[in-house]
Amino acid sequence: MSDWQKLNVAERRRQSPRVAVSTVAFALRPPAHARVHGKDEGQGLWLPLVRRVRAPFKDAWALPGGPTAWNQTLTQTAHATLVAATRIEPSYLEQLYSFGSVERSADAERLVTIAYWAQYSARDAAGATAAAGEDDNVAWFRADVLPDLAFDHGEIIATALTRLRSRTTYAAVAHRFLDPEFTLAQLREVHEIILGRPLDPANFRRQMLASKTLEETGHSLAGVKHRPAKTYRYLPEED
Amino acid sequence: MSDWQKLNVAERRRQSPRVAVSTVAFALRPPAHARVHGKDEGQGLWLPLVRRVRAPFKDAWALPGGPTAWNQTLTQTAHATLVAATRIEPSYLEQLYSFGSVERSADAERLVTIAYWAQYSARDAAGATAAAGEDDNVAWFRADVLPDLAFDHGEIIATALTRLRSRTTYAAVAHRFLDPEFTLAQLREVHEIILGRPLDPANFRRQMLASKTLEETGHSLAGVKHRPAKTYRYLPEED
Repeated sequence: MSDWQKLNVAERRRQSPRVAVSTVAFALRPPAHARVHGKDEGQGLWLPLVRRVRAPFKDAWALPGGPTAWNQTLTQTAHATLVAATRIEPSYLEQLYSFGSVERSADAERLVTIAYWAQYSARDAAGATAAAGEDDNVAWFRADVLPDLAFDHGEIIATALTRLRSRTTYAAVAHRFLDPEFTLAQLREVHEIILGRPLDPANFRRQMLASKTLEETGHSLAGVKHRPAKTYRYLPEED
Repeated sequence: MSDWQKLNVAERRRQSPRVAVSTVAFALRPPAHARVHGKDEGQGLWLPLVRRVRAPFKDAWALPGGPTAWNQTLTQTAHATLVAATRIEPSYLEQLYSFGSVERSADAERLVTIAYWAQYSARDAAGATAAAGEDDNVAWFRADVLPDLAFDHGEIIATALTRLRSRTTYAAVAHRFLDPEFTLAQLREVHEIILGRPLDPANFRRQMLASKTLEETGHSLAGVKHRPAKTYRYLPEED
């Protein structure tokens, strides 16, 4: 029995909610040595989940996260719990939204979850060690084929997907999934995966070059079927 | 002495942070009967603050807000505490960001603030009753002339201003400060107030009409010095 469960109803209602942090961390592919759920191991939006080993929602999959420690900022908690689960440093981490589940019952402890979202680049995931695959309680799932999730984590993932898609339409976000140098075809493929629809290659090329956010590297990447394609990199963002 | 202060250091470190909600509520003018700080009562970005009547930060000004009740969502808490302070219903309310102050000391209770931002339209503020002005502990301040603030509320207001400005550059946000029907000159003036710089009238007019987000009402508004100006309204947003 937890300390909280020893309180009477009136006392529970006066208690401040518990605070937890959870992170939705997207990658285009699961890391090399990771446990993977589902057959398709091709490119898509993948994210790591952790199987819960205690109640509530024992055995259900949940987002990496945990309570915020007394000497950690919320962002530090998000970072530490994500890296503890995946053993991979994300390229990008940002606060998403705070979810304040209300059980409307004195029988359930109130929980406020500060959600974050993260992006892993191809290079981040390639650096993963075999150790990440050894923990049976961590696995990578495709964002479109998820299991039943603990708490309101399904709603949190849906919110993160919406944020990722809307960001992609007006900001330079997609390239963070790639290596620092990439071809326009690679960048378009990431946009297509995120947005879930095909994009016209000529239009995409025109829009990207007109955006003035990327520059040619001077290098080329030999394609399998085509002539070598020029590679690009993003210009540093202005503050 | 609060319950929290009775705990020893190790116990305090295990405690979940307290959760509070605070709201930055912008209006173009203070409501008619409101207490106002500062001389200039013209258009600008104004926001309501509440004077704290107890420690910590006793007598300092703070954002409207408070702890979230056991049966309220975070948004309900933001709405209820804002309306309790101002007695005016906002046109718009949205979660802004969560701030997790770390005191890095067992002597200070950890506090996580879920911040919201709100917009009051001209009509919202006009409907305010004299009652709102009777509470000496609530006053309206210009966002660019703020007093010393409790907690990290200065940082929260700065974040809200940044969000309001960046939203204004890519979304239809400014018109929420106005009545449902407005002239392009009125809309431009709001943009200028939010962005803090003059905008070219002809360019602004061209961009707004090209955005396809507003339509003519068929009415005109007689200006003081000029010929009557057409009024516009925003088209309903698509989901």
